[in-house]
Amino acid sequence: MKQIRIGTIGGAGWIGQVHATSMQNVQRIYEEDTGIPVFEIVSDVNEEKLKTVQKKFGYKRYTADWRNLVSDPDVDLVDIATPNSMHYEMARTALENGKHVFCEKPLTLSWEQSEQLSALAQEKGVVNYVAFNNLMNPANQYVKELVQTGKLGKIVRVEGTYDQDMLLDPNIPITWRHINKFAGSGALGDLASHLLSVLQMILGNIREVNGVSSTVIPERPVKTDSCEKARVENEDVIGFMVRYENGAIGTVGASRVATGRKNYFAYEIQGTEGSVVYNLERMCEVNVYFKKDEGRDMGFRNVLLNPYHEGYSAFQPAPGIAIAFNDMKIIEAHTLLSALTRGTDYISNFAFGAKVDAVIAAVLRSVNSRQWEKVYAGK
Amino acid sequence: MKQIRIGTIGGAGWIGQVHATSMQNVQRIYEEDTGIPVFEIVSDVNEEKLKTVQKKFGYKRYTADWRNLVSDPDVDLVDIATPNSMHYEMARTALENGKHVFCEKPLTLSWEQSEQLSALAQEKGVVNYVAFNNLMNPANQYVKELVQTGKLGKIVRVEGTYDQDMLLDPNIPITWRHINKFAGSGALGDLASHLLSVLQMILGNIREVNGVSSTVIPERPVKTDSCEKARVENEDVIGFMVRYENGAIGTVGASRVATGRKNYFAYEIQGTEGSVVYNLERMCEVNVYFKKDEGRDMGFRNVLLNPYHEGYSAFQPAPGIAIAFNDMKIIEAHTLLSALTRGTDYISNFAFGAKVDAVIAAVLRSVNSRQWEKVYAGK
Amino acid sequence: MKQIRIGTIGGAGWIGQVHATSMQNVQRIYEEDTGIPVFEIVSDVNEEKLKTVQKKFGYKRYTADWRNLVSDPDVDLVDIATPNSMHYEMARTALENGKHVFCEKPLTLSWEQSEQLSALAQEKGVVNYVAFNNLMNPANQYVKELVQTGKLGKIVRVEGTYDQDMLLDPNIPITWRHINKFAGSGALGDLASHLLSVLQMILGNIREVNGVSSTVIPERPVKTDSCEKARVENEDVIGFMVRYENGAIGTVGASRVATGRKNYFAYEIQGTEGSVVYNLERMCEVNVYFKKDEGRDMGFRNVLLNPYHEGYSAFQPAPGIAIAFNDMKIIEAHTLLSALTRGTDYISNFAFGAKVDAVIAAVLRSVNSRQWEKVYAGK
Amino acid sequence: MKQIRIGTIGGAGWIGQVHATSMQNVQRIYEEDTGIPVFEIVSDVNEEKLKTVQKKFGYKRYTADWRNLVSDPDVDLVDIATPNSMHYEMARTALENGKHVFCEKPLTLSWEQSEQLSALAQEKGVVNYVAFNNLMNPANQYVKELVQTGKLGKIVRVEGTYDQDMLLDPNIPITWRHINKFAGSGALGDLASHLLSVLQMILGNIREVNGVSSTVIPERPVKTDSCEKARVENEDVIGFMVRYENGAIGTVGASRVATGRKNYFAYEIQGTEGSVVYNLERMCEVNVYFKKDEGRDMGFRNVLLNPYHEGYSAFQPAPGIAIAFNDMKIIEAHTLLSALTRGTDYISNFAFGAKVDAVIAAVLRSVNSRQWEKVYAGK
Repeated sequence: MKQIRIGTIGGAGWIGQVHATSMQNVQRIYEEDTGIPVFEIVSDVNEEKLKTVQKKFGYKRYTADWRNLVSDPDVDLVDIATPNSMHYEMARTALENGKHVFCEKPLTLSWEQSEQLSALAQEKGVVNYVAFNNLMNPANQYVKELVQTGKLGKIVRVEGTYDQDMLLDPNIPITWRHINKFAGSGALGDLASHLLSVLQMILGNIREVNGVSSTVIPERPVKTDSCEKARVENEDVIGFMVRYENGAIGTVGASRVATGRKNYFAYEIQGTEGSVVYNLERMCEVNVYFKKDEGRDMGFRNVLLNPYHEGYSAFQPAPGIAIAFNDMKIIEAHTLLSALTRGTDYISNFAFGAKVDAVIAAVLRSVNSRQWEKVYAGK
Repeated sequence: MKQIRIGTIGGAGWIGQVHATSMQNVQRIYEEDTGIPVFEIVSDVNEEKLKTVQKKFGYKRYTADWRNLVSDPDVDLVDIATPNSMHYEMARTALENGKHVFCEKPLTLSWEQSEQLSALAQEKGVVNYVAFNNLMNPANQYVKELVQTGKLGKIVRVEGTYDQDMLLDPNIPITWRHINKFAGSGALGDLASHLLSVLQMILGNIREVNGVSSTVIPERPVKTDSCEKARVENEDVIGFMVRYENGAIGTVGASRVATGRKNYFAYEIQGTEGSVVYNLERMCEVNVYFKKDEGRDMGFRNVLLNPYHEGYSAFQPAPGIAIAFNDMKIIEAHTLLSALTRGTDYISNFAFGAKVDAVIAAVLRSVNSRQWEKVYAGK
Repeated sequence: MKQIRIGTIGGAGWIGQVHATSMQNVQRIYEEDTGIPVFEIVSDVNEEKLKTVQKKFGYKRYTADWRNLVSDPDVDLVDIATPNSMHYEMARTALENGKHVFCEKPLTLSWEQSEQLSALAQEKGVVNYVAFNNLMNPANQYVKELVQTGKLGKIVRVEGTYDQDMLLDPNIPITWRHINKFAGSGALGDLASHLLSVLQMILGNIREVNGVSSTVIPERPVKTDSCEKARVENEDVIGFMVRYENGAIGTVGASRVATGRKNYFAYEIQGTEGSVVYNLERMCEVNVYFKKDEGRDMGFRNVLLNPYHEGYSAFQPAPGIAIAFNDMKIIEAHTLLSALTRGTDYISNFAFGAKVDAVIAAVLRSVNSRQWEKVYAGK
Repeated sequence: MKQIRIGTIGGAGWIGQVHATSMQNVQRIYEEDTGIPVFEIVSDVNEEKLKTVQKKFGYKRYTADWRNLVSDPDVDLVDIATPNSMHYEMARTALENGKHVFCEKPLTLSWEQSEQLSALAQEKGVVNYVAFNNLMNPANQYVKELVQTGKLGKIVRVEGTYDQDMLLDPNIPITWRHINKFAGSGALGDLASHLLSVLQMILGNIREVNGVSSTVIPERPVKTDSCEKARVENEDVIGFMVRYENGAIGTVGASRVATGRKNYFAYEIQGTEGSVVYNLERMCEVNVYFKKDEGRDMGFRNVLLNPYHEGYSAFQPAPGIAIAFNDMKIIEAHTLLSALTRGTDYISNFAFGAKVDAVIAAVLRSVNSRQWEKVYAGK
C-alpha cells in the first residue's frame, strides 16, 4: 500500500485533530486500498500542545515553524488547519514546494488569490482540496443526485440559511473572527460559505447577488471581563438575493447571533417536478416531494439516510442509523486519500473553492454598493 | 341589541360566504353583546347563485348591480368580497355614501388609492376594516405580545415565506390573477401580502426593500384544454430584502409554484433575548426560544395554543384543541362587529392596509429598478 | 325544506352549545338540502344560564325539567349533552317517546345498557347517534379509507395513546369525573374511549384486552382551597393490550396526568403494505408510508388534508388550510341531519357506541382480574 | 501508558470491526490516558476475512478457533462479537481463564446463565461489560440525569417502542434470528432489549410484566429464491405491559416488520414535574417539558445535544453538531478502557445484563401463560 506522508499545520487545534482522526479512520471504514496515512510532522503556534498531539496521533516529528514543514522533503501532503488569513501564504508556499495541499475552508480571503492558488496547483499537477466538510455528507450527495438527474425538474428557487447563536453574548471577547484582515467577513464567510459550497455543488454557478448586513453587537471586550472594548469590523447577520446561471432565484442568509439556533444549516430547493428541504440539525433526514405523487397521498417524504445513498453504507449496514459530523469528515478524508493514491476525481478542488470565494466577495461588494453585483465582476 | 344591516358585494363567491358565516357565528361563540348582523342585501356577478346564497344566509334582498347596494339606505356595512381591482371604486363609493366598509385584502392595487380611501373613511367617521385574516389568529397575536412586551429583546432579524403550489401546473388556464390590471402583482400581492400584514402588526414599518422575481410559467392556455396561450404578466416567485425602521433586517419570499408547498406561510423572528418560529400549516403551534433558558435544558419550546392566548378561549376550554381558518375568521368578524357596535379599536384599518400596499409597491419598483426602494418614496 | 325540531338537554353547557352551533352551521357550509334545524326547547340544571342560551341560539322555549322536554310533542330530535351517568335514563325515555336521539359519548356506563338502547332505537325505527366527534374528522376518514381499501395491506399492529395533563395539579378539586357512579371510569372512559371509537371504525372489533392502571393522585380537595379531601375512585393512567378479530395486536394507553401533553390523541397502524401515524395535535397532517415506495426515496409522507379527502372540501377550497375541532363537529351535525332528513347511513349509531362501551368494560374487568378478558364476555 | 491486549472473537463481522474501530479512536478523542489498546489476536468463523481484518486493525495474530484465543496468555480482554447463543460458553471460558470480558448484547439467552457469569466475573475480579450501545448515548445520559436528580418528579408512566422493517419482506430467507435455540426470542430480544437496557438504567427494576406477541410471517425460504420454507420460531411483533418497582406503569413494544420504521427506538417518560420524549432517529434531540414552565409559554423544549451533556463535548465543541452511532460506540469503548486501566465504574456490567435478560424471560413466560409474570420469579 502506498504511503502518504502528512505534514499538518495547526495540528494542535480542534479541526487539525479532526483531520488526523478522520484520516486514520479511513482504512478501518473502507474496504478498498486508499493508501496508508503516515503522520510525518506537525506544527502549531501552541507549542505546548505539540507534544501531546504528536503522541496522540503518532506524528514522527514536530516543529514550531510551518515553513520547515512545507519544505520538508519527507512530506507529501500539507494539511492546512489554521485561521483563514494564513491559508494563502501557506498554501502557496506548499504548492511552490510541489506538495499536495488539503486546506481548511475558506481557501483564501480573496477569490483572486484562490484562483491564483488553483492555477498554481494545476501547473504543479498536485492534489488541491478545500475542506468544505458538508459536500460529502450523504444527505447533500443525495440532493445533488435528485437535482442533477432531473428528478426535481427545472430548478426555479432556492432558500437557505445558516444560523448559530454562538456569538450572541455581548460579553464574549473579540477574536480574529471579528477583524476583517484575519476573517475577511463575519457570518458570511464563516457560516454562509458552508451553505454556498453545498449549493455550488448542487446548483452550479451564481450569476449575481445583492445583500444586506448588520452588526448587532458593534463592540466587544478586548478580553474576558475587560471593560475595554474593541470594534467588531464585520457582520453578525447577512441576507442576500441570488440569481443562478440556470435561472433559479432565491434568498440566502446567515447569522452568528441567531438566538436559539445552534447549528441551523437549512435549505429548500424547489423545482418544477419536485422539491427538497434539508436541515443539518436533523442530519440524517431529507424531505423530498415529488409532483408525480400528486393526489390524495401527496406529501413531503421524510427520507432517512439509508444504504441506497452514496457514502452511507460504508458506515452503517441498515437504514435509519445515525451518522454524523465525524463520519462526514471520514468520507472527506477517504475522498482525499483516494485522489492522492488512486487519482480519483473530487469536487472540492481549489477552483471550486475560488468559486465560493467569488460569491462571498460579490456579496460583500453588493452590501457596500447597494447594487446587484456580478459574481465574476472582473471577467 | 343593536342591528348591523349588511350588504355584501360578491356574496356568492367562496370568501363572500365565509364572511357571512363568520358574522353569523359571532353571537354563538362570544358571550358579550356585539350586535346582531342582519343580512340585508347581496350582489354578485354570478346572478344564478344569488338566489341560493340569499336563502342560505337569509339575505332579505339581492341585486345584480353593486351600485344599488352601496347606496341602499338600509345598509349600514358594505362588505366587499370581490377581485382586487374592483375594491377601490366600490369602497370609495360606499364611503361616499357614508357606509361602514369591510374590504377583502389587498385594499387596492395602489397604496396612494388606499391612503385616499383611508382619509375618506376618517373624514366620514366610519369603520374601515381590511380583511387580513391572519392578524387575529391567536398564534400571531401571541407572537405580537412576545415582541411588543420585549420578551424577545431587540428584534434583529426576520425571515419569512408564503409558498403554495396551486399554480404549478402549466395547463391551468390564465385568470385575473395573472393580469396586472386586475391583480396588481402575482405571488407578491396574493401571498406575500398576508405575511407582510402579520409582520407589519408585529414589527411595525419597513423602511426600504429590494427584490427579485421570476415568472416560471410565462404563458398559459386562455381556457381549459385550449392550445391558444396568453402571457402571464406577473411574477410566480418573489424574493426581497427588508430593512425595518427598528433596525431589523431580513429576507421575505413567496411562490405560487412552490412544488409540494400547500399553504406554507412561515416566519422566524430573532431578537436579542429570544426567537420565534411559526408555520401556518401547524396553525396551533408556536416555537419559542428564550435566552434565559440557556444551559443544559435550552431548546425551542413547542407552545400549543391555549387559553392563555388572546382569542383562543372563545373557542376551546382547554389547551391543544385545534382551532383553524374558519375560527380565525370568526375572531375577525367579532372584532369588526365590536368596532361597529361598541366602538372598540381594531388593527386592520385602511391606514394599515395602505401600509401593506406601500410595501408591495416598493418591492415592485425595486424589482424593476434593481435598487433599494424606500417604502414611502413620495414622502 | 324539512324542519327538524330540536330539544337539547344540558344545552347551557359548553358541549351543548357546541352542538347547537354546529347544527346551525350545516346549511351555511353544505350546498345540499339536509333540512332546517329548529331550536324548539332547551333544558339545563343551570337555570340561570337558560335564558342566555335561549336567546343565543333562538330556542323557542326552555324548561328546568328534562322530562318535559323528552315527551314534548313538538320535539323531533332529543340532543343529550349531560354528564355520562345520566345518558341512559334520558336516552331511554326519549326513545320510549319515539324521539330521534343524539347523545354525547360515552353512550352509557354499561355496555349492556347501551345495547338495550340500541335495540330500543331499532324497534322504534329512529335515528340514534352517539357523538364520537373524531369519527368524522377527515384525517380519520382518510385513514379508514387507507385501511379498508387495502392500501396498507393486512393490518398487524396498532399503538395508540390519548394523553392530557388537565388533572395533573393535585389541588384541582374532586369532580364527577373522579367518582365511578357518575363517570364509570377515569382516563379510560374519558380519553381512551375517543381513541377506541376511531380504531373501532378503522379496524373493527377487538376480541380481547388486558390492562393495567394507576391512580397517581389518590385524593383531592372536596372543593377549591379546602383541606378536606375525598378519594379519587378511578384511574389517572391506563394501559392495555389489545387483540383484534382481524389478528392485529398492540397496546393502547391514556393518561389525564400526562405532564406536558395537552391533547395528545395519537396512533400508529402498521400493515404489511404500509403504515400510518396520526396525532390530533397536528390535526391536518397524516403521515403515511407505502412499501411500494421502497428504495432510495422511501419515507413517511407528510400528507396535509386536502380536497381529495372525504369531508374536507366542504370547508376549504385548497389543500393545507387548517380545519379544526369546530369544523369536525359541523361534519358530525351534517351527518346527523342528513340521516334525519334524507335517511342516509351513519357510522356512529348506538350499536357502535355499545361496542366501544363493551371494550371499556372488558378493560376494567381485566385490570381487576389481571387476566385477558373477552370483549363480549357474556356472549 | 498501560497496554490492553485484546482478543476479539467474531472480529471479522460488522460489529466486531465496529468494536475495534471504537477502541482505536478512544485515544484520539479523549485527552486523558486510558491506556493503549493492542490488537493481539482475532478469530472468526469466516476464515477468509481474517487476513483482511488482521491487516485493517493491526492484529498481531489470528486463529480459526476461539478456544485458542480465550486461553491465550497474551490476551487481557476477550471481546465477544458473535451471535447470541454462543455468548455464554465463550464468556464463561474466558472468565475461567481470568480474562476481562466485553460481550455483545444480549449477554446470554437465559438470565440464570447471565447471573452465573456475573457471579463468576465478580469472583475472578475482572471487568465484565455488556455492549448495550445506547447506554452511553449522551441523550440517554441526559434523560437519566433528568430522572435521577428529580427534575421530572415522581415517574408515573413509561411508553416505549423499538420498530424496524428489516424483516418485512417475506422473501428474506430464514436466519439464526428466527430460531430460538440461537436467538432466544425475536423482536423482543433483538430490539426491545435495547430499549429495556436504557429504561433499566434510567428507571431501575421492573417488578412484573405481561405480554402479547405475533409472528406475522410464519415461514420463510430456507435460502434466497428457494421454494422450500422453514418455520419462523419466534415473534415478529411484541407488546407488553410493565410495572416498575418505583410504581410507574406503562407499555413497551417492538416489531421487526414495522412497515416504514427504520430504526425507530422511541420512548416517553412522564413524571409529576416533567416529561421527556426521545427518538433515536433524531438522535441529537431530546424533548423535555417542565411543569414549572406552565402558563402562556409552556411547551416541550426541543433540546439539542450540547456541551452541557455528559459525553458530548469529547466530540464537538459547540451545540447542535451531530454525533451518531459510531461516536456512541467510542464513548462505550472509552468507558470500558477506563474501567480496565483506571478502575473506574461502569453501568453495563454482567449483573446489569442479567437484569435485562430477566425481563426478557419474564415477558416470554407471560406471553405463554397469558398472566402477569414477576421478573425475578425464582427469587
